[in-house]
Amino acid sequence: MNRAVVARVVGLILGIEAVCMLPSFAIALITRGADIRAFALSIALCGVLSVLLTRIKVKSRRFQTRDGFVAVALCWILLGLTGSLPYAFYGYSYTDAVFETVSGFTTTGATIIAQPSVLPRGLQFWRALTQWMGGMGVLVMVLALLPSLGEGSVNLMKAESPGPISSKLRPKTSETAKSLYIIYILLTLTETIFLRVAGMPLFDSLTTSFTTISTGGFSVRDASIAYYGSEAINWIIVAFMFLSAVNFGALFQVQRGQWKDALKSEELQSYTLITLAAVGLIAVDLIHTMGKGVYESLSQSAFQVVTLMTTTGYATADFDVWPYFSKSVLLLVMFVGGCAGSTAGGVKVSRIVILFKGLKRELRRILHTREVRPLTLEGARVEEGTVTSVSMFFFAYIVIMILCAVVVSMDNVDLTTSLSAALTTISNVGPGFALIGPTCNFAFLSDLSKVVLTVTMLLGRLEIMPLLVLLFPSVWKK
Amino acid sequence: MNRAVVARVVGLILGIEAVCMLPSFAIALITRGADIRAFALSIALCGVLSVLLTRIKVKSRRFQTRDGFVAVALCWILLGLTGSLPYAFYGYSYTDAVFETVSGFTTTGATIIAQPSVLPRGLQFWRALTQWMGGMGVLVMVLALLPSLGEGSVNLMKAESPGPISSKLRPKTSETAKSLYIIYILLTLTETIFLRVAGMPLFDSLTTSFTTISTGGFSVRDASIAYYGSEAINWIIVAFMFLSAVNFGALFQVQRGQWKDALKSEELQSYTLITLAAVGLIAVDLIHTMGKGVYESLSQSAFQVVTLMTTTGYATADFDVWPYFSKSVLLLVMFVGGCAGSTAGGVKVSRIVILFKGLKRELRRILHTREVRPLTLEGARVEEGTVTSVSMFFFAYIVIMILCAVVVSMDNVDLTTSLSAALTTISNVGPGFALIGPTCNFAFLSDLSKVVLTVTMLLGRLEIMPLLVLLFPSVWKK
Repeated sequence: MNRAVVARVVGLILGIEAVCMLPSFAIALITRGADIRAFALSIALCGVLSVLLTRIKVKSRRFQTRDGFVAVALCWILLGLTGSLPYAFYGYSYTDAVFETVSGFTTTGATIIAQPSVLPRGLQFWRALTQWMGGMGVLVMVLALLPSLGEGSVNLMKAESPGPISSKLRPKTSETAKSLYIIYILLTLTETIFLRVAGMPLFDSLTTSFTTISTGGFSVRDASIAYYGSEAINWIIVAFMFLSAVNFGALFQVQRGQWKDALKSEELQSYTLITLAAVGLIAVDLIHTMGKGVYESLSQSAFQVVTLMTTTGYATADFDVWPYFSKSVLLLVMFVGGCAGSTAGGVKVSRIVILFKGLKRELRRILHTREVRPLTLEGARVEEGTVTSVSMFFFAYIVIMILCAVVVSMDNVDLTTSLSAALTTISNVGPGFALIGPTCNFAFLSDLSKVVLTVTMLLGRLEIMPLLVLLFPSVWKK
Repeated sequence: MNRAVVARVVGLILGIEAVCMLPSFAIALITRGADIRAFALSIALCGVLSVLLTRIKVKSRRFQTRDGFVAVALCWILLGLTGSLPYAFYGYSYTDAVFETVSGFTTTGATIIAQPSVLPRGLQFWRALTQWMGGMGVLVMVLALLPSLGEGSVNLMKAESPGPISSKLRPKTSETAKSLYIIYILLTLTETIFLRVAGMPLFDSLTTSFTTISTGGFSVRDASIAYYGSEAINWIIVAFMFLSAVNFGALFQVQRGQWKDALKSEELQSYTLITLAAVGLIAVDLIHTMGKGVYESLSQSAFQVVTLMTTTGYATADFDVWPYFSKSVLLLVMFVGGCAGSTAGGVKVSRIVILFKGLKRELRRILHTREVRPLTLEGARVEEGTVTSVSMFFFAYIVIMILCAVVVSMDNVDLTTSLSAALTTISNVGPGFALIGPTCNFAFLSDLSKVVLTVTMLLGRLEIMPLLVLLFPSVWKK
């Protein structure tokens, strides 16, 4: 491992984090909140750590694949441990603070705070901002700001961006990073304006946009989006959640006017079809089993399907009281997740598509023994190595989910709670069912469960491999 | 497809089935049961069908891989549809009769019969015998009896025997089939003697041995094995369940005195370790959470872990009232299942081992980009094609389980019921949790759920691919 270059990147990230805490500090000062001291201390600590780490001398600026993976894993672990300082200094236990912070950066949105509305404004802002920073990726942000980070810095992006195949929007890594952040910022600003026009207060509009575009799901209101009681706001949020879980490569094409190419994307088509099918099935179930009206059913179904499939996790209705068929479909879309190369979590639609194609090929191989055709996705050939990676990712996803659920069950919570806790954290959704349903929170769980769920959120966001790689002793050798 | 040879095999299987109904018919006659007419009609129908199909002229006796898969799939579907005739003529609805029969042949042991003890003796015997016939495989039985079935008949065995790699015990397929059935019969007779000596009535001893060695789990008693209230009987059954889920290749080595080679098996070691770990964890939980005694906890934990991991599914204790951690561990072992090449269901230990090795290799590939070493199992290299097959099998297993659970949830049963119903049928275990727990049965479910669960049992027993292959139109072409 190129230790020096990894240390330098970690140092830069801590510096960025300290800078990102400044607006929250300013808000704390303006509102004379109880969180002024918490932010002052946190910024000082992160700043000092950053200066110490970035002063390490770097001989070679070259990143190899594994350096990229290790740097990203360490950065995210440290972001969780230090980004939690404002909560900890404000008074939360360190376990709870780290849970909330990692839930933020990983855009999960699972919370241990029963009443976010009574938090000081500065902390509310920081809570929403962690999701916005984590959504597109903190290292991608560094790459956008510092084009000259080092040779092979594409490996940082590979490790942080979700999906089986990393797409190059533009020839240079730093240009790609910039393009991504431009789309990201445009989406955020547009949603803020729409929400403000629809009658949401400005602070709520901005923080809600932060947590929508990042598919995070934190809200400054205790009742989440249900608080506003506005159909217009609901539909605006549905639209932006849906967009944010689309591959940003497709959004980039749209931005350049290449509408046709964007709409040809197999992943986008599958994602849209799954969403529509789930909305339809649940709406029929709500009409049929619960006797709700057609518009109400469609509206509630659309909101919950989109918020869970895009792994955002806002609440407008208590879906935990819905019929079991609807709940099963919701669990299914939480598992699938959004598109690769978006801010969404879950297994990702493109992986599911590749696995279905792989299964079909396997059956074909039984029928016609000699024939082994390569798989294709979006018109391009999928390398065999990628097919294997996707399969192993799927296996690891299931194993981690099961093991996480077994640990949580040690709190003697029912199987629906433990299993949905594991699923909602690895898929970075937020709410689950039963004891951790949309009207509940994670505060009552044991510290052991909280730690395991925190690790599971990180595993989900970084797509497992970067963190598992840290378990190999050979990684730590020079 | 070589239609003629497939039709001939299906005809032979129906003939074997008619012959296998004869003992039940005899028992019905001797006990003057209400099932005499049911067996007479069923035997006549199966016999006629068999004669018609075996009279089709066969030009080429060559089986290709796909012919093997198609023949096995069709045989099993027909076995289910015709083996159910005795139940149907006796008075059960056809859906229920097919459910019970497929549950028998696939050695699942899920039942729609609340009180098996009041069934006529003939039907009780048939119910147990279907499990015994399905355990080692009906086509393997044909191969053992008819050595000259055709060229490439190894493809029949491949499709019917569980596991990622089919082991050749002896050079010729028919010899392998014979060796397997010899071990199978020896185990069955030995257990019968043990149980009889321990005080179980002879009829119970024989039928229980049928359903232990096949890891089926049907019992002639309403309270299952708990009825006998004997610790000796419990431990005898634990031992034989454990043995029956061991790869019969290893048992074959033991039979030949090659103890050391057998014990070296990686799969056997992993299987033993998982069993011991699960027994220990649950025993501790029962002592700690339920305040049970040490021996009682160990005894109950050992029985339930072994019966669910080997996918047998007998009941001695109502594990549905155990703490949630214990239940989670039980769900986990139901998912893993026994060894490949045994009578057990589940994903199979060897597949899990291959997948973990594949995951480890994937991580290694990230660390050392160029290195791609082949995987090994039991000292031999695992072909890349096998690794891919195993991955795709795992994906298909999860997808089928989820879709099955979604359909069952349309009965508006809770998530624990629907998910455990899907898991217990695809893993061929039998009982699940909540509404289908060890003291309940499947009779209350809708016909749609029963049909889907029946198909899921078949998918589990035949390891998915042979049935999915039937969906390709090209299979049906000459």
